[in-house]
Amino acid sequence: MAQKPSIPKGTRDFNPEEVAKRSYIFNTIRSQFELFGFQPIETPSFENSETLMGKYGDEGDRLIFKILNSGDYLSKTTAHDLESINYKQLTSQISEKALRYDLTVPFARYVVQHQNDLEFPFKRYQIQPVWRADRPQKGRFREFYQCDADVVGSISLLQEVELVQLYDAVFSELKLEGVIIKINNRKILSGIAEVIGAQDKLIDFTVALDKLDKIGEVKVMEEMLGKGIPQSGIDKLQPLFTLSGSFGSQIEKLKSILSTSEQGIKGIEELEFINHAISELGLKTSTLQLDVTLARGLNYYTGAILEVSAPKGVDMGSIGGGGRYDDLTGIFGLKDMSGVGISFGLDRIYLVMEALNLFPETIQTSVKVLFLNYGEKEAFACLKAIKKLRSHGIRAELYPDASTSKKQFIKQMNHANKRNIPNVVLVGETELQSNTFTLKTMSSGDQQQLTLEELINDLK
Amino acid sequence: MAQKPSIPKGTRDFNPEEVAKRSYIFNTIRSQFELFGFQPIETPSFENSETLMGKYGDEGDRLIFKILNSGDYLSKTTAHDLESINYKQLTSQISEKALRYDLTVPFARYVVQHQNDLEFPFKRYQIQPVWRADRPQKGRFREFYQCDADVVGSISLLQEVELVQLYDAVFSELKLEGVIIKINNRKILSGIAEVIGAQDKLIDFTVALDKLDKIGEVKVMEEMLGKGIPQSGIDKLQPLFTLSGSFGSQIEKLKSILSTSEQGIKGIEELEFINHAISELGLKTSTLQLDVTLARGLNYYTGAILEVSAPKGVDMGSIGGGGRYDDLTGIFGLKDMSGVGISFGLDRIYLVMEALNLFPETIQTSVKVLFLNYGEKEAFACLKAIKKLRSHGIRAELYPDASTSKKQFIKQMNHANKRNIPNVVLVGETELQSNTFTLKTMSSGDQQQLTLEELINDLK
Repeated sequence: MAQKPSIPKGTRDFNPEEVAKRSYIFNTIRSQFELFGFQPIETPSFENSETLMGKYGDEGDRLIFKILNSGDYLSKTTAHDLESINYKQLTSQISEKALRYDLTVPFARYVVQHQNDLEFPFKRYQIQPVWRADRPQKGRFREFYQCDADVVGSISLLQEVELVQLYDAVFSELKLEGVIIKINNRKILSGIAEVIGAQDKLIDFTVALDKLDKIGEVKVMEEMLGKGIPQSGIDKLQPLFTLSGSFGSQIEKLKSILSTSEQGIKGIEELEFINHAISELGLKTSTLQLDVTLARGLNYYTGAILEVSAPKGVDMGSIGGGGRYDDLTGIFGLKDMSGVGISFGLDRIYLVMEALNLFPETIQTSVKVLFLNYGEKEAFACLKAIKKLRSHGIRAELYPDASTSKKQFIKQMNHANKRNIPNVVLVGETELQSNTFTLKTMSSGDQQQLTLEELINDLK
Repeated sequence: MAQKPSIPKGTRDFNPEEVAKRSYIFNTIRSQFELFGFQPIETPSFENSETLMGKYGDEGDRLIFKILNSGDYLSKTTAHDLESINYKQLTSQISEKALRYDLTVPFARYVVQHQNDLEFPFKRYQIQPVWRADRPQKGRFREFYQCDADVVGSISLLQEVELVQLYDAVFSELKLEGVIIKINNRKILSGIAEVIGAQDKLIDFTVALDKLDKIGEVKVMEEMLGKGIPQSGIDKLQPLFTLSGSFGSQIEKLKSILSTSEQGIKGIEELEFINHAISELGLKTSTLQLDVTLARGLNYYTGAILEVSAPKGVDMGSIGGGGRYDDLTGIFGLKDMSGVGISFGLDRIYLVMEALNLFPETIQTSVKVLFLNYGEKEAFACLKAIKKLRSHGIRAELYPDASTSKKQFIKQMNHANKRNIPNVVLVGETELQSNTFTLKTMSSGDQQQLTLEELINDLK
């Protein structure tokens, strides 16, 4: 025992200031979710393994934290099993539960399980931690929160319009202005695959195109050729390399490229509708941008694909993402339930807000006033006043030990200083007799002798 | 696949109404914690196994959920190990992490790990889920929240006085009036053991005394004799059997019983101080009661012991508990750090509030107004109005699909009804032309034609 205690790698303790700042972000997101009509649900931290396994690919399966069965989990395992077994086989025998890996699969499970109690379209939000056995690195943790808003049961593109506005509303409310909301459509990517005559090369194509800014047109074309995309296909895509200008003018170029693909045209129409609606409604501080290289979780999304970048000048990668998926609940047996949703990346948003110094100074974790303690009689008078202050919503507390010397008095003042408490109240013999309170403002050192009522008004 | 999905036994999904009601309790507790000067921290969901194991007794160790190591967790296990091994030995080889079992041990670990960054006395609160592999039953779950407030680094009895007031403040704020805050002191229990000459019989004695109300004095004495407590000891305790009346008069009887025990007298003095202070300060709606049978976690507490019962007439057991522990951080190598804290039992408080119908009707999870959808042109006008409403803090949304028939119109109205949305807004050709909105109150059926400004004022 008595080794220096520590926490598992990839996990974090949060101190009061960090909790307060995180809560500020959570509360802002939550209140916008609710203004937009999303309702909160919560699901258990662990699910039955069969609910999660096989939903995130082999890599995902590997990164899911498994929970050991309780009691004698080996009781059903024979010695023979143990001799010949490998760990993957053993896992299914000794573990039936696993920590949730994201909020999307549990949400799909929830919708299917409770489908008879839900009114569709069902708009839910969920703010809960998830766990991944990823290799920890800067900005990547084994326990982190996801904040998701999804609608299921509506194919209306107005949902996409609402979600773009929701991103804008949250980031504007956080004063995180100038974020770029990038949008693409899976049908456009499918259309491109059709046009270049290589449906199976879609990922290679997207990965290469994504590097356009960094490596330039020539190298992108070389990479495509290297991946087996035919020169004739690349030629057709020439206009994609110089895609720039307004949303509208980019759409026009895409139309000419994808004129032969029914899928592609459908995708363009969807983007046009969303862009038109957003132009009509306006965004507060964000910008909507077309990005044909955007492909997040390609096999997952079927329509719109969204991703949010931090404002220019902040190097942070995406701070949110989402899109439409037409068959999420199908894996649990409920067909034809289209869904669309977005997610906020709390940890990165936190880092961006720190970098840009956007947390309001009013985020307060300490009390507003510390009553110094001069002895039992004085302390009781203080506690009565404190009770009144608290009933007026003023955070207040009494230093617990009486000061009987100058040294102890200094200790109490230091305590207020170290905790960033902005005011102290002194109640000594004089104040007791006159039924008053001496309020000292820590920053200025100013002192005022006040009645209880004046004290309350001053601190409110 | 496509089996009807389910969740692990002992866990729960929470629907929007449940989340909203739980949040109401959490937020009330949180705001009182902060008014009393407690600051929030959060610790990881899983800890290193050595942090948790051995801290809760053998039964506790058994009930801790263990997490399987990632990757090939058998790689360091030899075939020989597997042949001869029992599951307990194997666990330590294949699992290094475990889900937290309570918030107290992680808090002690936090204090020791971050001791150089903390200013003492350190007052923290923590509201997070914990996990126990208990047999699930009514009101007992495998995942549940704890809400704890603790102070470490102060031996002042004013902390106990504050915590009693904190209980009173939270339950009064929840309108859960008439709760009984029971108090005892470990030193009184030790004193009793001294007096009856049987330190080792303390638990037997307490268990028997606890049955006084149910089985009566004679049977209690029989049980004590049966457990080997000498008749001479029981005789000395005679006054305990008839302990009743005010806090003060009970204290007087205890004094005569415990007059020969230094420990006991110390315990009485502590109780007297707390009772005196609480009498001076007053409680809003709760009552403080002495209960010498109260012993929660006997080996854990060293001073005050607290437990809260639901108001008379509600059969629910304790809805909160706590006490003083003088050496919690000692297990992690930090000595002489006295702590005292209380905990709120969320799930039971929830059940009591449901039983007494105490949740305010204003707990609202749905939007305040649904705009009906008559087509694209009308929908855009609605979306512009909705954006304005939201910026005034009014929860609003548009039905996503356009109604082109009476049947679809009824479907939209039913949607508002099923979701308990109190108002709908109709924008058709007439409203578009006059730039107005028809507001229909669902409960009365009343309709008004309003300008946007009037609509906002009406709904605010």
